[in-house]
Amino acid sequence: MATIARAAGVSVPTVSRVLSGDDQVAAATRVRVERMIDEYGYRARKTRPPASPELIHVIYPRLDTAWQVEHIRGMESVTQEAGVGLIVSALDRGPAGKKDLLRRAHTGQAAGAILAAASGDTSLGTVLGQLNVPVVTLDPGAKAAANLPTIGAANFLGARAATEHLVALGHRRIGTITGSQGGLLCSRARLDGYRAALEAAGIAEDPSLIRHGEFEYRSGVASARQLLDLVDPPTAIFAFSDYIALGVYEAARMRGLSIPGQLSVVGFDDLPAARWASPPLTTVRQPLQDMGSLAARTVLNLARRKALESPRMELDTRLVERGSSASPPRSDRRGGVTA
Amino acid sequence: MATIARAAGVSVPTVSRVLSGDDQVAAATRVRVERMIDEYGYRARKTRPPASPELIHVIYPRLDTAWQVEHIRGMESVTQEAGVGLIVSALDRGPAGKKDLLRRAHTGQAAGAILAAASGDTSLGTVLGQLNVPVVTLDPGAKAAANLPTIGAANFLGARAATEHLVALGHRRIGTITGSQGGLLCSRARLDGYRAALEAAGIAEDPSLIRHGEFEYRSGVASARQLLDLVDPPTAIFAFSDYIALGVYEAARMRGLSIPGQLSVVGFDDLPAARWASPPLTTVRQPLQDMGSLAARTVLNLARRKALESPRMELDTRLVERGSSASPPRSDRRGGVTA
Repeated sequence: MATIARAAGVSVPTVSRVLSGDDQVAAATRVRVERMIDEYGYRARKTRPPASPELIHVIYPRLDTAWQVEHIRGMESVTQEAGVGLIVSALDRGPAGKKDLLRRAHTGQAAGAILAAASGDTSLGTVLGQLNVPVVTLDPGAKAAANLPTIGAANFLGARAATEHLVALGHRRIGTITGSQGGLLCSRARLDGYRAALEAAGIAEDPSLIRHGEFEYRSGVASARQLLDLVDPPTAIFAFSDYIALGVYEAARMRGLSIPGQLSVVGFDDLPAARWASPPLTTVRQPLQDMGSLAARTVLNLARRKALESPRMELDTRLVERGSSASPPRSDRRGGVTA
Repeated sequence: MATIARAAGVSVPTVSRVLSGDDQVAAATRVRVERMIDEYGYRARKTRPPASPELIHVIYPRLDTAWQVEHIRGMESVTQEAGVGLIVSALDRGPAGKKDLLRRAHTGQAAGAILAAASGDTSLGTVLGQLNVPVVTLDPGAKAAANLPTIGAANFLGARAATEHLVALGHRRIGTITGSQGGLLCSRARLDGYRAALEAAGIAEDPSLIRHGEFEYRSGVASARQLLDLVDPPTAIFAFSDYIALGVYEAARMRGLSIPGQLSVVGFDDLPAARWASPPLTTVRQPLQDMGSLAARTVLNLARRKALESPRMELDTRLVERGSSASPPRSDRRGGVTA
């Protein structure tokens, strides 16, 4: 700190105030000090014993969906046992959450950060890396930051299993609603899984059966209505999330179609709501809690300078068969093959 | 600290290590230091400027339900703006989470705590009070800690509105599933609201129509089946949570009863899943996000030594009419009055 203070021509307390994010420091002074910090590669973390991390931050783009509780439950079980506090924050409120994390990174309070559900797509990971704060991305978005350890689910295999299940029941016209126009990694992997299962069954892909929506209930309703409006509609729909699948339920109800008698539906995630749907939803289980605890364990290991087993970890997914999938209506059983 | 060190016959760093929860301190030394701390009324907090709290803890009995994300979203919007970290933890993993909070209380890092969803029923509130850490209970359990500020929802008024809505539709036999055998405060208030509406409508209470279950989907299925098994079953069911209401949906589906044609259902909470049910669920909206932000604002105000407007705050609830409630089937419209 003394070196930086000398180099920037300020006092040591001023450097300390810049590092702690004090707003009272004049902007020009702050810039000068920060430049010196960059130049001298000041790392507050190095002054701390590596084995006593205090706080782990988990950052979401928004806090708005039920599966985040599953993640957080998994993370918290690990951080609690380690005597570390889990700070939960979101990026949709403006820069304050990010600023807070960076201030704690500077002062050495932040032992690490988990960038969850595509928040790793921001520059935050890079900045934290420069501050020597361990970062793990959990379920990355469109582009996984190449240099960050990543934890995800076996999206390809899960989607293939879901589609194979519908094929095995006798469905040939299987619609799908992907949930991501922008091409999130998880969506692309699921679409590949769907295609692989069709190809293995010798079913030609029909582009009209693939709808790109959002990972939302509302989008599920709209996309399912489009699919059911086709001249040759699907007898089954594989939705890329449980929320989308619940939207398909509503679209079917509006048409008076019974599930699974007239339309089979399979989801992805296995949120509590899947079990509670009427009929209970057949879906692909993502181990959200395990993904959360693995992310927390990984970031703590990095904070303790332990080596990682692998920079990229995919946890298993598995099909959970419930009441929303059955054989297609008899009249459709041999019809509708597009080849 | 020097005074305590002298009194306990140890060094200042030892006192500091006890305060920070360092496990390396011999048990006997720790006890001696802690006794001196008690005696001298040492409060780490008092040495800090009151206007710069650092961390707020929110404690749940368990992290397991979707509405916790709503709470956390509300809290986090307030703490983030204040530059305060929100630490989320649960009590079901053993004593580690509590110990962590107490350690941060001792060192002055914890600016306050929110004891949510009945975790205020533990002794934690008392202990934190002794440490001068501001505490707020959010949606208290069976007994609201008398001396702690409390934030809840207008449960009585919400339940009365739900029941009045069903009465206005022409229902006379209205079943209810309370969700709490142990008598949580929120359940008792909702039951009172249900009774008040029946009484105002001149409908005598039928004890066979009141079922005490748990706040769970599974319990909703079981309780609804019992109600539908009655010789004179209800034409409407008011469930004390959306999860219970979804269980009623499943029980109705198993009986082949259509909602709302043959059975009306009203829930409580207005979780996202309520909108996404088939048909969308009529329910009482609890402002979960607002309750979370009010809890965070209150605890921050206490940390900054600001006076509270009131020690008990109830936020408004309101009925949201959707597709699951309608007039009873014609044959039932005048039948079933128990008087």
